[in-house]
Amino acid sequence: MKGRITQLFDIELPIIAGGMVWCSGWRLAAAVSNAGGLGLLGAGSMTPEVLREHIVKCRQATAKPFGVNVPLMKPDAAQIMDVIAQEHVPVVFTSAGSPKKWTSWLHERGIKVAHVVASSTFAIKCEQAGVDAVVAEGFEAGGHNGREETTTLCLIPAVRRATSLPLIAAGGIATGDAILAMQVLGAEGVQIGTRFALTQESSASDAFKQLCLNLNEGDTKLLLRKLSPTRLVRGGFFDAIEQAENEGASPEQLLEIIGTGKSRLGIFDGDLDNGELEIGQVASLMKGKPIQTVAQVIDEMKAEYDKALMALRV
Amino acid sequence: MKGRITQLFDIELPIIAGGMVWCSGWRLAAAVSNAGGLGLLGAGSMTPEVLREHIVKCRQATAKPFGVNVPLMKPDAAQIMDVIAQEHVPVVFTSAGSPKKWTSWLHERGIKVAHVVASSTFAIKCEQAGVDAVVAEGFEAGGHNGREETTTLCLIPAVRRATSLPLIAAGGIATGDAILAMQVLGAEGVQIGTRFALTQESSASDAFKQLCLNLNEGDTKLLLRKLSPTRLVRGGFFDAIEQAENEGASPEQLLEIIGTGKSRLGIFDGDLDNGELEIGQVASLMKGKPIQTVAQVIDEMKAEYDKALMALRV
Repeated sequence: MKGRITQLFDIELPIIAGGMVWCSGWRLAAAVSNAGGLGLLGAGSMTPEVLREHIVKCRQATAKPFGVNVPLMKPDAAQIMDVIAQEHVPVVFTSAGSPKKWTSWLHERGIKVAHVVASSTFAIKCEQAGVDAVVAEGFEAGGHNGREETTTLCLIPAVRRATSLPLIAAGGIATGDAILAMQVLGAEGVQIGTRFALTQESSASDAFKQLCLNLNEGDTKLLLRKLSPTRLVRGGFFDAIEQAENEGASPEQLLEIIGTGKSRLGIFDGDLDNGELEIGQVASLMKGKPIQTVAQVIDEMKAEYDKALMALRV
Repeated sequence: MKGRITQLFDIELPIIAGGMVWCSGWRLAAAVSNAGGLGLLGAGSMTPEVLREHIVKCRQATAKPFGVNVPLMKPDAAQIMDVIAQEHVPVVFTSAGSPKKWTSWLHERGIKVAHVVASSTFAIKCEQAGVDAVVAEGFEAGGHNGREETTTLCLIPAVRRATSLPLIAAGGIATGDAILAMQVLGAEGVQIGTRFALTQESSASDAFKQLCLNLNEGDTKLLLRKLSPTRLVRGGFFDAIEQAENEGASPEQLLEIIGTGKSRLGIFDGDLDNGELEIGQVASLMKGKPIQTVAQVIDEMKAEYDKALMALRV
C-alpha cells in the first residue's frame, strides 16, 4: 500500500480521514494520524479561532502529520487559511471551489495541497492549478456531493485516465476490500468519511453515531439538487425536504426549510428529528457494529485488505 | 476467473451480457456466448414469436449456452416463458418482479434461473425462492433501476454478506479492471450491459451507438423516480421529463410525456431527439472508442484484467 500518497504526506498507510463537519475535531484527526493514516480537521464547522485550538490540541496529541479540510465557499476561508499558515499545518485539503484560488498561496508557505472533485473535468483543473493530489469523490459519499452523480466505480477510472496526479478515491469506501478495489481501479489512496465519523473519537453525538450504525440500504438519499446536492439520512429534516422537492419547490423555498444551524443540531447535538443528518451510503454496510475506536477500524481494514489480496493469489 | 458462475452456466468466462431492450438480439447473444461468456436475449422488447425467432437463430449461430432475460412485469410474460421452455433455452434471467413467481416452474423444466436485484433485501428473497444465482445491479446501470439508489460499490459487499448465492455484479462495469474490482468485493461474475449495447453485434441503431460512445460524465441521469426510476441519456426526451419533474409533475403527467414506443424510437430507430435513450453511466468511460465487435471487447477486458491482477503482484 506504499506509494505516491504515503510519500507525499509522509504517512504509513494511504488512508485519509475526511475532514467532516461536526465530526472531525482534534481527537479524530490525531487518532487517525497516530494509527498511520492522515487525519484531517474539518474546518467547515469551525471558526478560525476554534480551528486554531484544534490544531494546537491535535499537535499535542500526535507527532505525526495531519491536515485541515477547507470548504472554499466558506465566507471566512481567508482567515482559516491564515490560521493554517500561522500554525504550520503541513497539509490542506480544499473542496467546494476552484483549486486555482489557494494552491500557490499554500505552496509558497510549504503546505501540501489536495483538492476534492467529483468529475474528471475538475480533476484536470486541479492538475492545471498545480495541486499535489486529487481526491475523486463519488455519488455514494455523505454530505455535499457532485452535480453529475457519477459513482465512485465510474469516477475513479475516469479521473485516473484524465490526470497523472496522485489519486485518492472517496465515496463508498469503508472496508479493506473496498480499499483494494479502489487500488485495482487506479487509486493510490483512499479518503474515508463515514466509517471514521462513527468512531469513538469523532465529535458527533452518540445519538447520531447509533442512528448511522443502524441504517438499512436506501436510508440515505441525495436531495437538494436545486441547491447543492447533499446526501442526507432519512428523518424529519429529510422528509420535509423530500416532500417539498416532490411538489416542485423552488431553491428559495428549500432554503427556507433548511434554515440555519441544522447540521450542528443533527450531527453534534444529536437532535435526530429536526437536525440535518449527513452520512455516506456505505453506512448500511456497518449495520450492527459497535462504536469502534479509530485503531480498531484501521486494524480491521488492514486485515480485510490483506485477506482480499491473498484471495486473488490462490 | 473460473468459479461457481462459470460452472453453473457451463461457460468459460464469468461475463454475462445483459439482456437489453432493442439491443440484445440473437447476433449479440450468440457473439458473447461464442466468445466464452453468456449471451442473453432481451425479451423485454420482443413478442413471444419474435423471441422464438431469435432463439432459433441464436442456436444456429452458436453451439454454446445462452439465455433470455425476462422482465416479469411484461404482460405477456407467461407466453414468453412458454416459448423459452418449448425451445429448451438453458438459462433465464428474471427481473422487475418476484423471484418466487417463476423459479420453480423454470427449474421443473431444467432451466437455470438468475434474478436481478438492487438490494440485499431482495437478494435474500431470491435465496428463499431457490434461484441459482443473483445479479446485484447498482445505481450506475442504464435503464430501469432500483429505488434505493445503492451504487455497485456499496451493493455488492451488502449482497455478498446477505446471501450465499453465486453473485453476479452489474452496473458500472465495462473494463477488465472493474471486473477484478468486483471480484475483490465478493462477486463471482459480472453482467455487462452498456459496453455490449454499443458493439457491432448489438441491434441498436448506429446513431444511438455513436451518441453513447461520445458522452461526457454527467450525460446520463436517473429520472422518473415517481414511476420506475430509469437512467436516461440527455436529449429531448430527457429534457422534457427533467423539466416536468423539477416542476413537481405527477406520475400521470409523466406517463403522458413518456407516451408509448419511445425506447424503440430512440434506441432501435435512432431518433435521438424524440426517443427514450437508455445507457449506463459508465458509457462516458468509452468516449471516443469505435463501435467494436464483441470479440474485441472481450479480448480487451481479458487483457485489462490480467494487467490489473499482475499489478497487485508487484
